[in-house]
Amino acid sequence: MNKIKPRTLSGFIELLPKDQILFNKVLDKVRASYERFGFVPLDTPILEYSEVLLAKAGGETEKQIYRFNKGDTDISMRFDLTVPLAKYVAMHSGELAFPFRRYQIGKVFRGERTQKGRFREFYQADIDIIGDEALSLTADAELVSVINTTFRELGFESFTVRINNRKVLNGLFEGLGIKDKAVEVLRVIDKIEKVGEEAVIEMLQELGVDVFAINTILGVLKFEGTNSEKLEYIKSIKIQSEILTEGIAELEEVLEAVKGFGVPEKNYMVDFSIARGLDYYTGTVYETVLNDYKELGSVCSGGRYENLAEYYTNKKMPGVGISIGLSRLFSKLTEVGVFAPEEATCAKAMVLPMTEDIKYALEVASVLRENKICTEVNYTKKSVKSMLNYANRLSVPYVIFVGEDEIKSQMYTIKDMKTGEQFTLSMDKIIEKLK
Amino acid sequence: MNKIKPRTLSGFIELLPKDQILFNKVLDKVRASYERFGFVPLDTPILEYSEVLLAKAGGETEKQIYRFNKGDTDISMRFDLTVPLAKYVAMHSGELAFPFRRYQIGKVFRGERTQKGRFREFYQADIDIIGDEALSLTADAELVSVINTTFRELGFESFTVRINNRKVLNGLFEGLGIKDKAVEVLRVIDKIEKVGEEAVIEMLQELGVDVFAINTILGVLKFEGTNSEKLEYIKSIKIQSEILTEGIAELEEVLEAVKGFGVPEKNYMVDFSIARGLDYYTGTVYETVLNDYKELGSVCSGGRYENLAEYYTNKKMPGVGISIGLSRLFSKLTEVGVFAPEEATCAKAMVLPMTEDIKYALEVASVLRENKICTEVNYTKKSVKSMLNYANRLSVPYVIFVGEDEIKSQMYTIKDMKTGEQFTLSMDKIIEKLK
Repeated sequence: MNKIKPRTLSGFIELLPKDQILFNKVLDKVRASYERFGFVPLDTPILEYSEVLLAKAGGETEKQIYRFNKGDTDISMRFDLTVPLAKYVAMHSGELAFPFRRYQIGKVFRGERTQKGRFREFYQADIDIIGDEALSLTADAELVSVINTTFRELGFESFTVRINNRKVLNGLFEGLGIKDKAVEVLRVIDKIEKVGEEAVIEMLQELGVDVFAINTILGVLKFEGTNSEKLEYIKSIKIQSEILTEGIAELEEVLEAVKGFGVPEKNYMVDFSIARGLDYYTGTVYETVLNDYKELGSVCSGGRYENLAEYYTNKKMPGVGISIGLSRLFSKLTEVGVFAPEEATCAKAMVLPMTEDIKYALEVASVLRENKICTEVNYTKKSVKSMLNYANRLSVPYVIFVGEDEIKSQMYTIKDMKTGEQFTLSMDKIIEKLK
Repeated sequence: MNKIKPRTLSGFIELLPKDQILFNKVLDKVRASYERFGFVPLDTPILEYSEVLLAKAGGETEKQIYRFNKGDTDISMRFDLTVPLAKYVAMHSGELAFPFRRYQIGKVFRGERTQKGRFREFYQADIDIIGDEALSLTADAELVSVINTTFRELGFESFTVRINNRKVLNGLFEGLGIKDKAVEVLRVIDKIEKVGEEAVIEMLQELGVDVFAINTILGVLKFEGTNSEKLEYIKSIKIQSEILTEGIAELEEVLEAVKGFGVPEKNYMVDFSIARGLDYYTGTVYETVLNDYKELGSVCSGGRYENLAEYYTNKKMPGVGISIGLSRLFSKLTEVGVFAPEEATCAKAMVLPMTEDIKYALEVASVLRENKICTEVNYTKKSVKSMLNYANRLSVPYVIFVGEDEIKSQMYTIKDMKTGEQFTLSMDKIIEKLK
């Protein structure tokens, strides 16, 4: 028979067991942390009507989308978890209690050109809080608390949630009379870390921004100090703009509430340079940086939007959300060795029968399983050496030998596969040890 | 702005929070039970090269598949979890330890005509054990033990795993000289419960099966008794066939091992009528019936196959596997009320601030969360009535009031939302109660 070469599409992830086990642990931690705050799970379909999914999307998104026809139906694969949420909330608003607090962890699909660290199928882990007509700014602060809890659960302490409010930049531009150039100015500002200050000044001049405006903007962006000092500074520049005033007030309220949630001060800061895209967010915006791995860029971003489902309904639903690109985070942190895969098995113990009749070994395993200890029985009936070899390849933490002596004495030999230590213990003691 | 009607593709599932929470509990239990036996998780891509995915598939499967081109690439969505496993094992055999014991729980896609209870996107929960050249029959027995544990975890006690071996039927047909008609005969036999014995006899006669053969086959299928009695009976009919002899021997060995795994006798039985498809399984086959809900048909099926990855590699890899159609199981059991959704929130408690400053309420929530108790704070600043209303809509089990008195005394009022009982307790006691 002619064989077909087994291969996986480029940009699609398929992990070996030890990596998969670790990835699942990371995913479980994120999920547990999201649920700790009472967010409810949602699981929308991977396929949607193209008309529904692409209600808003423009050029770049459409090009990336996996879209096809099945019969007469024009179908697309979801490219994020926000549009399906908007559809869901618009469809089911009568059946939901607001604020609607949901999390969704799932795969999304983007057929972009693959490059290192970019995937075409990847996991996102999103939280959004959706209000009916209005939504308290406390929600914006709560998400900072969620980010704090989540990254701590993942083992990090040194990370910073950078917080801004889109109205601050928008108001500043309005006050400086460059509102009509806002998009271009933002695009230039976004490059400051890459190209440096001088290049940015030049580009802003080319856009026709005057010297006073340039100095004011750079003054704000470059100002260093505590959160209160930053807020004092931006108030002191006395630019006339209601939007700016509103942005500052909102930012102050959010910061106050973040403190109320008990987020350590070292884990969040005001950063007036954060903008997060050009047309989506309308208030609070966040980015999260792992301080020891800044090269990863933002590992958790999000913000507040005015109206989640405007393409589907007249009901006004403001919201605030965050998203972790789980696949990318995992792949990068495995690369730098922060996440280090260990076991290639879910089993905590492997039972090795030393007798022809494996009945007793099966019984030992059953008792362990009844005690919720994940257990594998090696029933290959191969040599002890070969069974230990298999146990080693899986990096199972413990093996338990069940031979004639053990069956008679009801005392079992358990070996710690990391240290090599062996103990002869009763079943109760083994259960205690493995729990 | 013109609105687009928000809608979901027909045959695609989108649950409301209370159903989703329950579904996740079911899924978590299945996963925990699979892991209890040491199976490792696998998560293959949803998209694959069509050439790879359709290496084997014939007419019916191909029609159902979601297949499309992206650029020059011919892509298909996975329609089961077995073909991706075969590809995975063929690709990574050098990096895996055998027997390779994996589980995969994930969505699969079949664009068939939708009918009640049939989905186009649905979850399957699969286990397979793959051997390198050979695989002990103990593996076949272990899966019966996994089924037993899993359905018990899901709250069932009255279920039966029906076990057969394909070689028994094949050998019987060979011995009766109707081997060349095996496929048609199986198809007829499969209808016996639907159309009755007489119609089956008629159809078999039409196929040219002689009276002796018909009587022998029906004798075997209709024989009632214990497992040993069934095996004794089929041995007693003295049909000459090595395959039959082999099938009986295998079945006996598997049954003996099932007993060794401690599966209660009432939960499994020999059923010579089980065939499970026509060309895939080659040895042990299983179906599982919930005895109080027989109308669901088999809720967990599977069997042994000779060679998992023959389309991709010359390496011989026999395997045995089972699959639960999770979405269908959940939908049916919710319909009949066995699965009854309760909470529409992951939160165990909702904190209701009774003061303008919600700082203390946030602190109470933080303490609960640090103790891993899922907690929501209602910071809507609405009336107590409205906050309780929201808590009721979510069916949150407890609410905790944090007002002036509570803040002063450090004793909090906690209300059991089901019974209406209220208690005033210290934080420690509340944590104890909620754990």
